[in-house]
Amino acid sequence: MNKSLTFIENNHKKEKPKTKEIPFGRTFTDHMFLMDYEEGKGWHEPRIAPYEPLTLDPAAMIFHYGQTVFEGLKAYRTDDDRILLFRPEKNFERLNQSSDRLSIPPIDEDEVMGYLKELLKVEKDWVPSFEGTSLYIRPFIIATEPNLAVSPSKRYTFMIILSPVGPYFSGGIHPVTINVEEKFTRAVKGGTGMAKTAGNYSSGYQAQAKASQTGNNDVLWLDGIEKRYIEEVGSMNIFFKIDGEVVTPALSGSILRGITRTSILEVLNEWDIPVTERRITIEEVYQAYEDGKLEEAFGTGTAAVISPVGTFNWNGKQIVINNHDIGPLSQKLYDTITGIQRGRKEDTYNWTVEV
Amino acid sequence: MNKSLTFIENNHKKEKPKTKEIPFGRTFTDHMFLMDYEEGKGWHEPRIAPYEPLTLDPAAMIFHYGQTVFEGLKAYRTDDDRILLFRPEKNFERLNQSSDRLSIPPIDEDEVMGYLKELLKVEKDWVPSFEGTSLYIRPFIIATEPNLAVSPSKRYTFMIILSPVGPYFSGGIHPVTINVEEKFTRAVKGGTGMAKTAGNYSSGYQAQAKASQTGNNDVLWLDGIEKRYIEEVGSMNIFFKIDGEVVTPALSGSILRGITRTSILEVLNEWDIPVTERRITIEEVYQAYEDGKLEEAFGTGTAAVISPVGTFNWNGKQIVINNHDIGPLSQKLYDTITGIQRGRKEDTYNWTVEV
Repeated sequence: MNKSLTFIENNHKKEKPKTKEIPFGRTFTDHMFLMDYEEGKGWHEPRIAPYEPLTLDPAAMIFHYGQTVFEGLKAYRTDDDRILLFRPEKNFERLNQSSDRLSIPPIDEDEVMGYLKELLKVEKDWVPSFEGTSLYIRPFIIATEPNLAVSPSKRYTFMIILSPVGPYFSGGIHPVTINVEEKFTRAVKGGTGMAKTAGNYSSGYQAQAKASQTGNNDVLWLDGIEKRYIEEVGSMNIFFKIDGEVVTPALSGSILRGITRTSILEVLNEWDIPVTERRITIEEVYQAYEDGKLEEAFGTGTAAVISPVGTFNWNGKQIVINNHDIGPLSQKLYDTITGIQRGRKEDTYNWTVEV
Repeated sequence: MNKSLTFIENNHKKEKPKTKEIPFGRTFTDHMFLMDYEEGKGWHEPRIAPYEPLTLDPAAMIFHYGQTVFEGLKAYRTDDDRILLFRPEKNFERLNQSSDRLSIPPIDEDEVMGYLKELLKVEKDWVPSFEGTSLYIRPFIIATEPNLAVSPSKRYTFMIILSPVGPYFSGGIHPVTINVEEKFTRAVKGGTGMAKTAGNYSSGYQAQAKASQTGNNDVLWLDGIEKRYIEEVGSMNIFFKIDGEVVTPALSGSILRGITRTSILEVLNEWDIPVTERRITIEEVYQAYEDGKLEEAFGTGTAAVISPVGTFNWNGKQIVINNHDIGPLSQKLYDTITGIQRGRKEDTYNWTVEV
């Protein structure tokens, strides 16, 4: 471990969740990781400290110009009580890609991986053991310089906070209903759509509210230019199985580079199931549905892993998939990925990292 | 004044700037305004309090999903020592428009105007009197609920901070050099381009850096769809004078509704100078330049008021305007607007509000 890491223990430990019914993202562990950046000095003062409020100047640039990036991953407790991470190096790689787009200085990925492991060792009892639960890990960087000039900050703080979370779906996965958004745009080429940065998320709240008011669980985003090409669903990537072939939108510059997405592409290749990354329009999906060739559709992401789609509502039309049942490929992918994540299936891909 | 406003005096007053050389956005006054929002309770606890650091949970939604809006306006000290605001009601109107896009609850515009005036009365000695200086006013709202779920916050804080600022251009206005950005995109229809929200600003840093590395002062943004239609320059609106007619891009949904922009449209109408809001391509501007019909170009915004453009660098070509001198219309508009703002010209439009 990096010798410079300091540890300030929290002497007021909180109570840990006693059931698997843990609401997402509201319970935090006793400690967090922090590290500061200053121009000329670089990243410095890595420390594990009590989870407590931050003190920031009201002019801190994060509040005004949104210079910030984040990541999301999970730690899982195996049946034999080991703690596993799923491809965490991919998260820190993507964090640096996001930072590049937002003009934030890069972190040393290996060093930060070491700090994360130390934090998880301190908080290991917070990784829940109930079925379907995990410890959600949120690394993020915020611009902290107090300055109202519209230019990159000279100071940043990198943090990792941890939150025990319940199962995404209670009682196993079940298909969701998705509204195809025609008015609002999530991202466009040349913008920040490929980066995990704060502004990409709140900009979707209006579309999300409209979708849920009409009985949908989530939103399918189309491209910002022609409003035809499928991009992603909510904050997940999307896959379709059409006539035996799996299709997912190619990374166009406005689509998030999902780590679950990449993993599924690799698994499908391994299984010799034809899979293509390409542009795909909503009309093509509708046509496949009309022709009886749309076999499955599912979103992929860290939160749900695989989220099968039962219905797309598009412009007054309904696309009902597989009679609103979970498709066999969706189920098999879900079982495979979650099995590897939780140490119940052999990790032939070498994806898991033990803490 | 609203009876519920409380005042906590700062007993440690800071020293005020002694010259007009005040760097933008780094000096703050002794007090700030704050007001909180909670679901079910609405906006409450308006207060003027010492300018001091904020205390926020590391999971506060502002840090993760960018739910935030802001405004910018200025208070000017007149030669006879009055303090004037320029169309401040427009700022609070636009703040609510931005909030609507970001799913933030609206403020009561009249009430908040009252609070701003009270704050300015407390801080009146901070409005500088040196030539070209002013007190920059930054109202903003941030989402404060600690919650990692991707959904609107149930808690917010509205704040107003104040910062004395020097002249935007030292020694009067002078023309700037602008790079026409071809790769990066600021905003697209259906996105958040019309809102003053944090994420719109840091997303421009890469283009800004590229522009300044090649000797430009700022960036001209083109539309995100065809990359031909002119949107805005840096964080200003843009105007062209072509063959006697003034043209500015129409508000398309991705362009900021500038208050200086609106005011200039009204002044030009009053002066019977032909002015059109419409779509305009960079090719058309280049053609006008080649034909010798591009008479002037200028950006408009709160910071600079009028910022004449001397050169556009576009794809290896140079568009040099008015021999890099300030055009007569740019100068007259600058003198008129700043004259009204500073109480040196009669305010026939009823735009200024005395504190």
